[in-house]
Amino acid sequence: MASSEEEVALLGVSGSPFACRVKIALKLKGVEYKYLEENLANKSDLLLKYNPVHKKVPVFVHNGKSISESLIIVEYIDETWNQNPILPSHPYQRALARFWSKFIDDKVVGAAWKAVFTVDEKERETNTEEAMKALQFLENEIKDKKFFGGEEIGLVDIAAVFIAFWIPIVQEIGDLDLLTSQKFPKLYNWSQELVNHPAVKESLPPRDPIFAYFKVRYENLSASK
Amino acid sequence: MASSEEEVALLGVSGSPFACRVKIALKLKGVEYKYLEENLANKSDLLLKYNPVHKKVPVFVHNGKSISESLIIVEYIDETWNQNPILPSHPYQRALARFWSKFIDDKVVGAAWKAVFTVDEKERETNTEEAMKALQFLENEIKDKKFFGGEEIGLVDIAAVFIAFWIPIVQEIGDLDLLTSQKFPKLYNWSQELVNHPAVKESLPPRDPIFAYFKVRYENLSASK
Repeated sequence: MASSEEEVALLGVSGSPFACRVKIALKLKGVEYKYLEENLANKSDLLLKYNPVHKKVPVFVHNGKSISESLIIVEYIDETWNQNPILPSHPYQRALARFWSKFIDDKVVGAAWKAVFTVDEKERETNTEEAMKALQFLENEIKDKKFFGGEEIGLVDIAAVFIAFWIPIVQEIGDLDLLTSQKFPKLYNWSQELVNHPAVKESLPPRDPIFAYFKVRYENLSASK
Repeated sequence: MASSEEEVALLGVSGSPFACRVKIALKLKGVEYKYLEENLANKSDLLLKYNPVHKKVPVFVHNGKSISESLIIVEYIDETWNQNPILPSHPYQRALARFWSKFIDDKVVGAAWKAVFTVDEKERETNTEEAMKALQFLENEIKDKKFFGGEEIGLVDIAAVFIAFWIPIVQEIGDLDLLTSQKFPKLYNWSQELVNHPAVKESLPPRDPIFAYFKVRYENLSASK
């Protein structure tokens, strides 16, 4: 547990699914922290100091030491505060959790994003197909578990918050069916469980402003066709 | 330590820097294993069975259970066999090792590859610049350490075997200067230390056939211009 003298801070952007991962992990652990909202159009000196390589959020700062990359931050948090483990204890289960988390970053996030926010029609279609194919793997993987982590939220659930909260927003904006109860019933049920889990619910940004923000982005993109 | 009844196997391709990472890790741990060379033009049933998601090498099999993704395999090996630790013991140092390993995959491997194996001249230039920028970060990071891991090889060194062995081959083929003693003296010295480290030396493929293989690939690509 963080002692009162500890410095724990998170640099994020409220609409970022990657910053949200870190918020969920900290909430699960019950760690208090200072949240610093960044403006990516005018990055703070702190962000440039703490993440000189990528200059991106999230950045996690613990007693003056900074870490970037959301999944790496989540593992650090899990190794630093032992309560409510996020990764399984067995090496093989840990490897699987890391595999599916990486899979979400490599195969789902980019494809789902480009399925909506791409002008080129063909590229949109290719990305929609890729996203669907990737979601099918996750539909098969969740099986009849409540969460990817089993009865409790684990690394894969945290990584997949993008699927549960952000995909429904962007698919509505782009008038696409990516995650629906018809196509992926198990994954859809899981997504409902996840967004209603207390640690997740309290970490998610409010839906309306995020929806409005992405809607404007989408309309600007469509206007540039 | 692996007992004699244990099944430890690696599905790889001799020219793959990713399979080589796993070989180095197993060598450092002194774990005996069965190596199965794959033909990616005609993938084995075993590969399709054990890596149905990506259908790629390396795949690591331990007592019937399979793991894919080279860095995830290396972490699994480190967690399963305790001798000669590959990751540092402190969470912050572990996070940094994971950060730089991911950086190599995200920023170095693809860019260096495309700097050579791309027909489009402009794309080649962009990728060359990106690769150089990424290597500069690593030049700054290695400082005066023998290895990224300090006195001993660690996760970042294993991830970076691509830089030490594969970049010199492909830059010669593409007539490019990426990793040279003039441009990146510290990284160059590190690369010499690394390829001559016994665990690495014994895990690397023979240079000549790899050079010949990539040379043919490069010439076929140039001919298709």
